[in-house]
Amino acid sequence: MPDAGERVVPHFQEQLEVLKERLLVMGGLAEERVRAIVDALVERNVDVVDQVQSGDEPINRLHMEVDNRCFKLLALHQPMAVDLRSIVAAVKINTDLERVGDLAINIAEAVRRYMRHPPVKELIDIPRMADIAQRMLRNALDAYVRRDLDLAQGVLNEDDTLDALKTQVFRELLTYMLQDPHTIEPSLDLILISRHLERIGDHATNVAEDVIFMVSAKDVRHHAGEVEA
Amino acid sequence: MPDAGERVVPHFQEQLEVLKERLLVMGGLAEERVRAIVDALVERNVDVVDQVQSGDEPINRLHMEVDNRCFKLLALHQPMAVDLRSIVAAVKINTDLERVGDLAINIAEAVRRYMRHPPVKELIDIPRMADIAQRMLRNALDAYVRRDLDLAQGVLNEDDTLDALKTQVFRELLTYMLQDPHTIEPSLDLILISRHLERIGDHATNVAEDVIFMVSAKDVRHHAGEVEA
Repeated sequence: MPDAGERVVPHFQEQLEVLKERLLVMGGLAEERVRAIVDALVERNVDVVDQVQSGDEPINRLHMEVDNRCFKLLALHQPMAVDLRSIVAAVKINTDLERVGDLAINIAEAVRRYMRHPPVKELIDIPRMADIAQRMLRNALDAYVRRDLDLAQGVLNEDDTLDALKTQVFRELLTYMLQDPHTIEPSLDLILISRHLERIGDHATNVAEDVIFMVSAKDVRHHAGEVEA
Repeated sequence: MPDAGERVVPHFQEQLEVLKERLLVMGGLAEERVRAIVDALVERNVDVVDQVQSGDEPINRLHMEVDNRCFKLLALHQPMAVDLRSIVAAVKINTDLERVGDLAINIAEAVRRYMRHPPVKELIDIPRMADIAQRMLRNALDAYVRRDLDLAQGVLNEDDTLDALKTQVFRELLTYMLQDPHTIEPSLDLILISRHLERIGDHATNVAEDVIFMVSAKDVRHHAGEVEA
């Protein structure tokens, strides 16, 4: 039994590993929700739309758990340098992942409205956007866990592809809308969906930038130089 | 002169006050950018659009400065309880304010495109949305500085008004688009602008939720109960 004056503090690195593992679980859930809702859009599966719309509970629980873990690690261990940056990065990444979960709900709302109309077109670019956004998210989280700068940099590079696809989707749908007013309403929802997917890519980009700062103490967000912590 | 072994650490509360003041400055700049770009939309003033599009430098500099201050406060002072929650809240609020600055740029892009067409309609609801979003942002930050729970709660309540206005803007513009295909392109930009404004309200909501957690250690984000830090 420890002394009365001695606090039983679990080892920092051990707790940091648990934190990382929880973030990975959260990222996996977020990714899964994005894939599920875009599949539901392609297959016009209203049951899956329902599931996604009501299924944010597990991510929300993890969101609070991770925040809690970060507070405890900061309060009990007073980490410094890269360890401190890892925890602050976790706080930010946690927020980004929770938002991705919310965006899946936004997409679900648009998919539900979209399904009230006949399909505007065969969907090719939107599933591609979803693939890219998912991959960016997965790579950004792997980069966090492995402290892998190259992987994080790769995520930043993929953001342009996502942007280009979003513009392409927009232009194509605009042509449909101008030709046939019946396509206006459903096209608007596809445009919204493509923008939600782009925002998921933005969240992955945020995570990647946090990883670069965590590892190198280099702030790449605004083309800035080194900082000290 | 202090001992060689003694670190000269500025007083925590003093440094926390500086941090709050910097966040207020940042919030003021963000608010100003939102107001400027919505005024430019109403007045069709392309010079202001240019200024907003190229004017994110001051917020970006503050974003890095605030992050840096948070790291230093965590590393040098190892704050606990409400002080720790204040710093972690500042990290999150800093991110939200920087995104509001980015959203002003997104709005500017849409305003620039919108101005290539004749006006679709007189703009009433979009300036109202901007007013509400600005006020939410200002109140959320004041709530942070004063640790004012009521003010933070008020921000959460205003989010519904913003949401309702966004839906109203959408419905009205849809009617225009269905009646006259020439209005499709500019209407799309107005719809995007209204959504960007809604997202600014979302960021203010995030700040308000962080304030409630900071003050009460109560997590209101997912209807959850108390947590310990």
